[in-house]
Amino acid sequence: MTTQEERPLLEHVEQPDGVPERLAAQIRFIVEIDKLKTVLRRSPLVADDRLENDAEHSWHLAMMVPILAEYADDPIDVGHTVELVLLHDLVEVYAGDTFLYDDEARQDQEAREQAAADRLFALLPDDQAVRFRALWDEFEARQTPEARFAKAMDRLQPLLLNFNNRGGTWRTPGVTEADVLRRKAVIGEASAELGAYARTLIHLGADRGWVPRAGAEPDAG
Amino acid sequence: MTTQEERPLLEHVEQPDGVPERLAAQIRFIVEIDKLKTVLRRSPLVADDRLENDAEHSWHLAMMVPILAEYADDPIDVGHTVELVLLHDLVEVYAGDTFLYDDEARQDQEAREQAAADRLFALLPDDQAVRFRALWDEFEARQTPEARFAKAMDRLQPLLLNFNNRGGTWRTPGVTEADVLRRKAVIGEASAELGAYARTLIHLGADRGWVPRAGAEPDAG
Repeated sequence: MTTQEERPLLEHVEQPDGVPERLAAQIRFIVEIDKLKTVLRRSPLVADDRLENDAEHSWHLAMMVPILAEYADDPIDVGHTVELVLLHDLVEVYAGDTFLYDDEARQDQEAREQAAADRLFALLPDDQAVRFRALWDEFEARQTPEARFAKAMDRLQPLLLNFNNRGGTWRTPGVTEADVLRRKAVIGEASAELGAYARTLIHLGADRGWVPRAGAEPDAG
Repeated sequence: MTTQEERPLLEHVEQPDGVPERLAAQIRFIVEIDKLKTVLRRSPLVADDRLENDAEHSWHLAMMVPILAEYADDPIDVGHTVELVLLHDLVEVYAGDTFLYDDEARQDQEAREQAAADRLFALLPDDQAVRFRALWDEFEARQTPEARFAKAMDRLQPLLLNFNNRGGTWRTPGVTEADVLRRKAVIGEASAELGAYARTLIHLGADRGWVPRAGAEPDAG
């Protein structure tokens, strides 16, 4: 994969003479976030034999929100929740994707992502930078019903990919059914019904041997 | 590329026993639209040496809407416009992408896409099928300010990719600056300022030889 260092887009993005500075800044940001399409996740697609990238993952979550909003335990503003999921991974254009089951990488994840947010959102005009940063902070803090539901979608979607791929990232060495259940518990914090559905899929996956039951040796796969 | 015929996802998608039919239908639809990630467009990414797919294209438009909404000549509801762009290409999971400069394929495009819409949205529970179909019909009819702005984003985004790729699909044999200006005129129908910006980029691209000036021979490249 081409690294971001080899493709310093911002230095290449050119504006014709006479474009107002505000529009030029907005266009630079829009071109810069093209990079999100190159940030690969660990989950394989269902529809093809390759890994998913952050941009198509974010689109998928945004489609799920209006379809599944009726299961939110606290009422949510659908449009606001869609905005949260659309930009929830944006800082990964600089910070990269952090795998859910990589405990080491997760330790400095917050610091890396905060630094990336500082850098990325500063490309926008000030008013829009403040607004996008507030949305991303809201997603991360998970204190509003919308942020909780957005996070639930972020955990449910790869679960759907994994289940329909006969395991997917559940087959990561050392990961057990108990790990998956623990990491997916946030789904139930936003929706009891979707939380129950998620647990059912995980149990069925374990029944079929796609993820070992709790108690398996680490690194036993 | 693996064809959709080789991957009849719907037949593979399994639901555990006891899942309510409404939720099962919603999840089947969500898994089925994973296919949008495999529908390739003609535009190359800026951030990598590959073609863009419909899902990441749709995400990019959804990010552009709140950033550029201030340039809409008629006021738009941002959340509604975001919904339109998120699903505007969804029927392509069955109908495939139709290239903007392929006049032959564009002749039966509407019939192919209507049939695909009938098939795809029927997967959803009735109330959601009706709602999604209405949104897609609204986008296609381009009669509301939101639909016009959504369409403008759909034409502006590949223009940004092409310009930052020193031509991209502008280099298609037979395509001239006049063709690009004509196809991109819908941007100006939603926003005079963004329309002017688009024309500036196209003229600058022609100045640099990335697309031939009007009058070049067809198929002359």
